[in-house]
Amino acid sequence: MAGDAGSGDVGADDTGSDNPGRVRVALDARAYDILAAPDLLDRAGALMAPILRRPQTVIVTDQTVADLYLSRLEASLDQAGIAHSAIILPPGESTKSFGHLNDVMDRLFDIPIERATSLIALGGGVIGDLTGFAAAVALRGIDFVQIPTTLLAQVDSSVGGKTAINVAAGKNLVGAFHQPRLVLADLSVLDTLPERELKSGYAEVVKYGLIGDRDFFEWLEGKGGSLLAGDMSARRHAVTESCEAKARIVAEDEREGGRRALLNLGHTFGHALESATGYGATLLHGEAVAIGMAMAFRLSTRMGLCPGQDTERTEAHLRSLGLATRLSDVPDVNWDAEDLIARMATDKKVADGKLTFILTRSIGDAFITRDVPRETLAAAMAEEITR
Amino acid sequence: MAGDAGSGDVGADDTGSDNPGRVRVALDARAYDILAAPDLLDRAGALMAPILRRPQTVIVTDQTVADLYLSRLEASLDQAGIAHSAIILPPGESTKSFGHLNDVMDRLFDIPIERATSLIALGGGVIGDLTGFAAAVALRGIDFVQIPTTLLAQVDSSVGGKTAINVAAGKNLVGAFHQPRLVLADLSVLDTLPERELKSGYAEVVKYGLIGDRDFFEWLEGKGGSLLAGDMSARRHAVTESCEAKARIVAEDEREGGRRALLNLGHTFGHALESATGYGATLLHGEAVAIGMAMAFRLSTRMGLCPGQDTERTEAHLRSLGLATRLSDVPDVNWDAEDLIARMATDKKVADGKLTFILTRSIGDAFITRDVPRETLAAAMAEEITR
Repeated sequence: MAGDAGSGDVGADDTGSDNPGRVRVALDARAYDILAAPDLLDRAGALMAPILRRPQTVIVTDQTVADLYLSRLEASLDQAGIAHSAIILPPGESTKSFGHLNDVMDRLFDIPIERATSLIALGGGVIGDLTGFAAAVALRGIDFVQIPTTLLAQVDSSVGGKTAINVAAGKNLVGAFHQPRLVLADLSVLDTLPERELKSGYAEVVKYGLIGDRDFFEWLEGKGGSLLAGDMSARRHAVTESCEAKARIVAEDEREGGRRALLNLGHTFGHALESATGYGATLLHGEAVAIGMAMAFRLSTRMGLCPGQDTERTEAHLRSLGLATRLSDVPDVNWDAEDLIARMATDKKVADGKLTFILTRSIGDAFITRDVPRETLAAAMAEEITR
Repeated sequence: MAGDAGSGDVGADDTGSDNPGRVRVALDARAYDILAAPDLLDRAGALMAPILRRPQTVIVTDQTVADLYLSRLEASLDQAGIAHSAIILPPGESTKSFGHLNDVMDRLFDIPIERATSLIALGGGVIGDLTGFAAAVALRGIDFVQIPTTLLAQVDSSVGGKTAINVAAGKNLVGAFHQPRLVLADLSVLDTLPERELKSGYAEVVKYGLIGDRDFFEWLEGKGGSLLAGDMSARRHAVTESCEAKARIVAEDEREGGRRALLNLGHTFGHALESATGYGATLLHGEAVAIGMAMAFRLSTRMGLCPGQDTERTEAHLRSLGLATRLSDVPDVNWDAEDLIARMATDKKVADGKLTFILTRSIGDAFITRDVPRETLAAAMAEEITR
């Protein structure tokens, strides 16, 4: 199974930017493709038709994305003879709730759906997570297709089958593993993404290089700028490389017992920063991850594990594309070292009260450890505050 | 896999009623045991200890069951050194809702739970379904143990991993497949079950004989009365035989594409009757199934598929133990044939608008068919109304 996952069509880059990059994800007896190309929305119906159990779909999206792209998707489904309804939700993280899930369910059964109906998640991470979870539990599991409209969703939530909603106690605490049947990453829709969100997603792209692929990191040093500026060929390469990297790691560890934790590089720190700033506009997820990755490199260097030049090079690349790497880069926040450490300890990956860290030996060689002494962490965090 | 499932310890009957009957269920890479014996509650801690990831549990139960049995279970867990909290819900079908699921989640995370925490469902079908679903989605899946306290839950929901809640559009429309780690069927707790509920559960026991085991049906003809009266040896045999029968069928068809539908003998009719009477005290689930099974036999005989004497014998056995077999047995309901047929058509097993029926060639030889002509069904239902 691991051999199948991430066997991407690496030659596609040479054949023009209209040819979709393709990543095959084979997990849990369900394999699916991630296609990445410009203007996939207009081909969505034709691409979906072969994998639908019946030509019967319900699109779940938010108002912002619906205004921009719903009619194009509907036209494409019409063309392919695929029936569709739409459920339009308010944009924003608060939509990932029991209340909205219940609402989606009631609306699905009003349409109504059958077991062979497929959901289509058209939107960013919130829509993908909520719709995937709705598909996981409606009639105890129906199919869904993902059309991620943010760079973050294209390179992160499109692989691995994690779906979830938030509850009072925290984010993503209720959910299911449920693989999509197909992912269509339309590279053109990123043009309407606010620049800050695009860069936030880019931080997760960089993460894949930092975890295990120095060559990819070096490629990003050269092409990251044009990717953000709209170069479709660069976007396609970055999205497929990222999805392949994630698929390889997830295939080895679908249920997150071990290696999958590597994907949390920058996230233990990052979640603490997001939590301290209220998961709001102060710090987007990828922005927090960028700072968190820089913190993980600095901690690794402080512990004598990683050469200082790799840490500097990582920081330099992130900063060159406008991503913050230090707590002091975030305006108007009074950080507190003890508070941040306490927030790390409430992360749901904590086991037996011990914190898990992803540290690194160099760019492209991250590893999992639970052996960061409390004093080392405290000293490092104190320094981060004043840096 | 099919070879493992239902390989019950059939010799156990000879060794005294304190020895638990044991059914091994092997599904979806997760195998678990169902133990059936008197007073298992007092041994629950010791029996659970070896399979818990950590000695840390949360009991979910309802007020009625808590008053009767919670303290005994807690004492047993204490004795085995297993930590426990309890969440006590209101009794009744309305507890299987998004609202109560959300409430259970918030209370679980307040305790708090970790990934290695196990839930314990102490109660009937409502508690089992809700708790199993909560375990399926909390942190994307944690372990749970079932202690079913009704005969219906012991012989039905303890095998197959179906968990669910109800939504406005219908029962069990939202849920997950999630196998328990262990099922403890305490045969003594059935003594406090209202007689009507005990008989309702017995209808599902008879179902297993009718579907595929004429010998078991004949055994029930002899022992059904003493089973209901409290004979522990008879109860153990009936519960283990029923669970084995269900495990065999489910192992062949875990996700309900084909043979699993056999378990719906009497249920297409039965659900229509329950729906028409509002899923309330007029007709309990098993009571509706008993009438539904009799209707399935009568329809089979009407269509020339099943000898009349098998239909009469089935009716006679159900009636001898006080279960109704005809619509006219249910007081104060004005049945309407068209209405019942319409209600059958909204069952969630409908595919392409075609009704699926479980009919029979004899006692012990049920089969699945979608070939019941509309006119035949209409005529049969018209006759059922006046019978």
